[in-house]
Amino acid sequence: MTYSHWKIGKVNEPAVFELFFRKNPFHGEYTIFCGLDESLKLLQSFQFTVDDIDYLKSTPALQHCDTEFFDEYLLHGLNDALASLKVYSVQEGTVVFPKCPLLIIEGTLGIGHLLETTLLNLINYPSLIATNASRMVLRANEMNEHHTNYCSSTSSSSSSKNNKPKPCLEFGLRRAQGPDGACTASKYSYVGGFDGTSNVQAGKMFGIPISGTHAHSYIQSFTSLDVVAQLTLYNKKSNKKEVFLTRVLMYRTAKAHNSTLSSSSSITNDGELAAFCAYACTFPNNCLCLIDTYDTIASGLENFIFVAKALDDFGYVPKGVRLDSGDLAALSATCQHTFQKVITEEPTRRLAFTDLTVVASNDINEATLVELSRKEHGITAFGIGTNLVTCQAQPALGCVYKLVQFNGEPRIKLSQELVKVTIPGVKRVYRFFGGPDKKAPLLDYMCLADEDPPTAVAAGGNQNSSGGGGIICRHPFRQQHRLIVFPSRVEPLHRLVFDRGNVVHDDDKDNDNDDNGLSKTRTYVQKQLHEEFSDTITRYENPKEYDVMVSPKLYKYLHELWEREAPIEERR
Amino acid sequence: MTYSHWKIGKVNEPAVFELFFRKNPFHGEYTIFCGLDESLKLLQSFQFTVDDIDYLKSTPALQHCDTEFFDEYLLHGLNDALASLKVYSVQEGTVVFPKCPLLIIEGTLGIGHLLETTLLNLINYPSLIATNASRMVLRANEMNEHHTNYCSSTSSSSSSKNNKPKPCLEFGLRRAQGPDGACTASKYSYVGGFDGTSNVQAGKMFGIPISGTHAHSYIQSFTSLDVVAQLTLYNKKSNKKEVFLTRVLMYRTAKAHNSTLSSSSSITNDGELAAFCAYACTFPNNCLCLIDTYDTIASGLENFIFVAKALDDFGYVPKGVRLDSGDLAALSATCQHTFQKVITEEPTRRLAFTDLTVVASNDINEATLVELSRKEHGITAFGIGTNLVTCQAQPALGCVYKLVQFNGEPRIKLSQELVKVTIPGVKRVYRFFGGPDKKAPLLDYMCLADEDPPTAVAAGGNQNSSGGGGIICRHPFRQQHRLIVFPSRVEPLHRLVFDRGNVVHDDDKDNDNDDNGLSKTRTYVQKQLHEEFSDTITRYENPKEYDVMVSPKLYKYLHELWEREAPIEERR
Repeated sequence: MTYSHWKIGKVNEPAVFELFFRKNPFHGEYTIFCGLDESLKLLQSFQFTVDDIDYLKSTPALQHCDTEFFDEYLLHGLNDALASLKVYSVQEGTVVFPKCPLLIIEGTLGIGHLLETTLLNLINYPSLIATNASRMVLRANEMNEHHTNYCSSTSSSSSSKNNKPKPCLEFGLRRAQGPDGACTASKYSYVGGFDGTSNVQAGKMFGIPISGTHAHSYIQSFTSLDVVAQLTLYNKKSNKKEVFLTRVLMYRTAKAHNSTLSSSSSITNDGELAAFCAYACTFPNNCLCLIDTYDTIASGLENFIFVAKALDDFGYVPKGVRLDSGDLAALSATCQHTFQKVITEEPTRRLAFTDLTVVASNDINEATLVELSRKEHGITAFGIGTNLVTCQAQPALGCVYKLVQFNGEPRIKLSQELVKVTIPGVKRVYRFFGGPDKKAPLLDYMCLADEDPPTAVAAGGNQNSSGGGGIICRHPFRQQHRLIVFPSRVEPLHRLVFDRGNVVHDDDKDNDNDDNGLSKTRTYVQKQLHEEFSDTITRYENPKEYDVMVSPKLYKYLHELWEREAPIEERR
Repeated sequence: MTYSHWKIGKVNEPAVFELFFRKNPFHGEYTIFCGLDESLKLLQSFQFTVDDIDYLKSTPALQHCDTEFFDEYLLHGLNDALASLKVYSVQEGTVVFPKCPLLIIEGTLGIGHLLETTLLNLINYPSLIATNASRMVLRANEMNEHHTNYCSSTSSSSSSKNNKPKPCLEFGLRRAQGPDGACTASKYSYVGGFDGTSNVQAGKMFGIPISGTHAHSYIQSFTSLDVVAQLTLYNKKSNKKEVFLTRVLMYRTAKAHNSTLSSSSSITNDGELAAFCAYACTFPNNCLCLIDTYDTIASGLENFIFVAKALDDFGYVPKGVRLDSGDLAALSATCQHTFQKVITEEPTRRLAFTDLTVVASNDINEATLVELSRKEHGITAFGIGTNLVTCQAQPALGCVYKLVQFNGEPRIKLSQELVKVTIPGVKRVYRFFGGPDKKAPLLDYMCLADEDPPTAVAAGGNQNSSGGGGIICRHPFRQQHRLIVFPSRVEPLHRLVFDRGNVVHDDDKDNDNDDNGLSKTRTYVQKQLHEEFSDTITRYENPKEYDVMVSPKLYKYLHELWEREAPIEERR
């Protein structure tokens, strides 16, 4: 395309493109905008190398092209094109809606075309994964009335426990779409509200907390108790190193005496017990055991209890268990009941057994989380991999990139499908707020960039008269759908982020050197979801569509252009 | 895990891991194994930098660890671990089935654990995407009885046209999961049978043919015919440059005369026509026009016909049209009917109008392709993006990585879910072939590495006696399911690919410097799918499960170990 424009002398003519999506993902009614940071990196470093040019010249698809195009335009002319470029963007982490331009690219036709596909790639997946992550975090923390029943033994502590946030950990590296897909997933899952990742590389690159446990293969690598028979751990209470297994076996033997089985070794798997002992001795402060390698309740949970009691005796607080198969609700409930039973039988163990983590991590998705929240379960944290990072429920956000103005003239893309008709012209979007604290978003208002920006209506405004002081908003396509809105606060959604070769609005990153501003964006996401928007747009079932309206002038502009461009069909 | 093993002195003990999957993707019955090439690159360069070590030491999760682990083991000891490593693998591009080890990693416990997640990442997505691509190519080329009706005007040419393969082009860069996900997708789509990609970077990196057309934004950037009014094209017949638009408008005016509309400019969109003219003049030999920007049939198709006739007059063969919205079957059929009508009215245009491409590219997936193959349509090529590269139908292949032997002892992972029970021990897999040309795979046979390899049964073997000369095969989990097989050819599936620090079996790449052996692997995939396996495993509806059986010795081994490791549940 760029070659063709260069060839006919249009490549440097002014053009404005918009990047936006048409439909919220996951049957939801909101999207988290992400990927601006990487897009700005692209803009700052965008160029073709001599090697790239040689490849392009050699490829059959382009080999009949005039070589001046490559040498003059792509190799040298691009700097001029970038120098004339202005990019406006919504802030990273903003809750956004269909039709709202996420990026507005004002430059030449040539640079606009060249950036299209890469910008789409850099926005689509980050926004999708942040949205997916935010939805899973919402679902994981949804009220679970049953939870109090067994998680806390006293009614006073029950409500605090019930409200405790359930950490969500991203475990997706092994199933992500490529190594870079995995790191992108880790990064934007964190922005969307996840608390950590098992992806160590992402931890290093982005400063995200890393977190993980052992795998089944760790358990399987222990075949008998022999290998841990001599393993010692410092006993904080006796102030000396002691053989850990001795204490553990004391508890297993006691359990065996209460059983019909003849020897203690029959009641739980030896290799598994050895693995737990080894892990406890190496990570006494962080001993989280995977308990489903052989038999979750009969072997894994019992072995964990023996080890946890021994750790408690040595002065350490055990961490908990991980479940990776089976009926997660029932198994986790059994774990919590068993922990409670230990406390009931031995009240001195309350400290060690009250706050044990029960991580669930088997093929969890948003629907599973909703299902779990309606059941009795004892899960206190989630490890989510495949369905988070690949966004199994909808693996692509359909961002598109359309020309909205060329040479000062508005452009429209028509389509047999109404949803694919674009809104022409250079536009800006404002978010209108109302409510007691001016915190509740009322709707998004889109107008032409050269219209006067809308302003808040003063508190004393005459809101009872017919529209006096209010702002008239129209639905872009439904003629009858009009509103008069009295926003107490108006915030522009777009900021200039790239101007003539330089990133200009990068202040998000100033305060936060550790993680490239990720924590700040993460906080911004949570603030919008929890303090600004109500659950009508974020809930799982029947969320309500948020209004994106247009100014009367834009409405007129759109419909006039539409009529002008649409051909008149002949029918005989 | 590795730290824990190092701490208790087990890190250098011998261990064997297997990487495999449990279920074919896409409700299908086969999978294409890919990702070995990248896995070997990982093995060759696997190391921790000083920077990595500093990060690991600083992270809260590992900060209580003995620093000797990082400095001695990770920084220096890893070379010894790699030097002791042997990796066996199935050949890149092989059709594989559940439970078959794809990679067998024989080394130490430490290196085995460290490689786990990265190897899974490098195999999972490439295998998934190659499988997805191969399925789409199969579906795109499935017999379409209606196709002959209008694609060819004579019955003699109809069958050849009907059998013509329909090229499949990968258009997924903009929607892929990250930039690297996109390049991985392009690479393995090609291996799976796609014919080209619109991802120029992937074209450059992997030598894949690149292919693409213009976007809607290209069309929209033309607002009137003025900009192309002076545009000339070399006329091969008159041997001089001529204004192209003059000829194009001749055809539009003629059409308008036959219409009730007063002026020629009303019958089709001017901007669109200008865009097609510009594209034709810049790419006269490759003029493929996107026709759905304003109105597919009333404007786009008509404009294309005007331009195609002019190109024909100038001595060029036009390329065709692309459809990106609407009812692809009906619209493509109308395109083909219209092309036929041109030929009927002007037989001299046969050459220019007979082989026109009709590319369809709107949100196509495997199910759409199946649906299209059952309808009348005129599509001759497919451009597939989102649903190919994100594998929307199933965005992750569930490869797992399990310890199968430790310190010479077989290891098993049990589970409440039967499908998650692993087959213990170091194993090899052989593919048994039969049929007239010894080309038809009969089943895959898994036995212990120290068993005698199975051999082909000589043609004269007494196949009528009770099993004489035949090989007894058992289903690993269904006791009653046994077979006696008489393979006329036996091929081992595994080869040693990495031995003590070096890649050893890399001969696939020797012959093919252009594309890193990709073409060779691609051919190998096609050969297996079309010449070896029958459509019983590749078809869309009710594919049949391919048998992966075990030797009697392995069966016994598995079931004895299972009984030994499973705890006996107490019930009171």
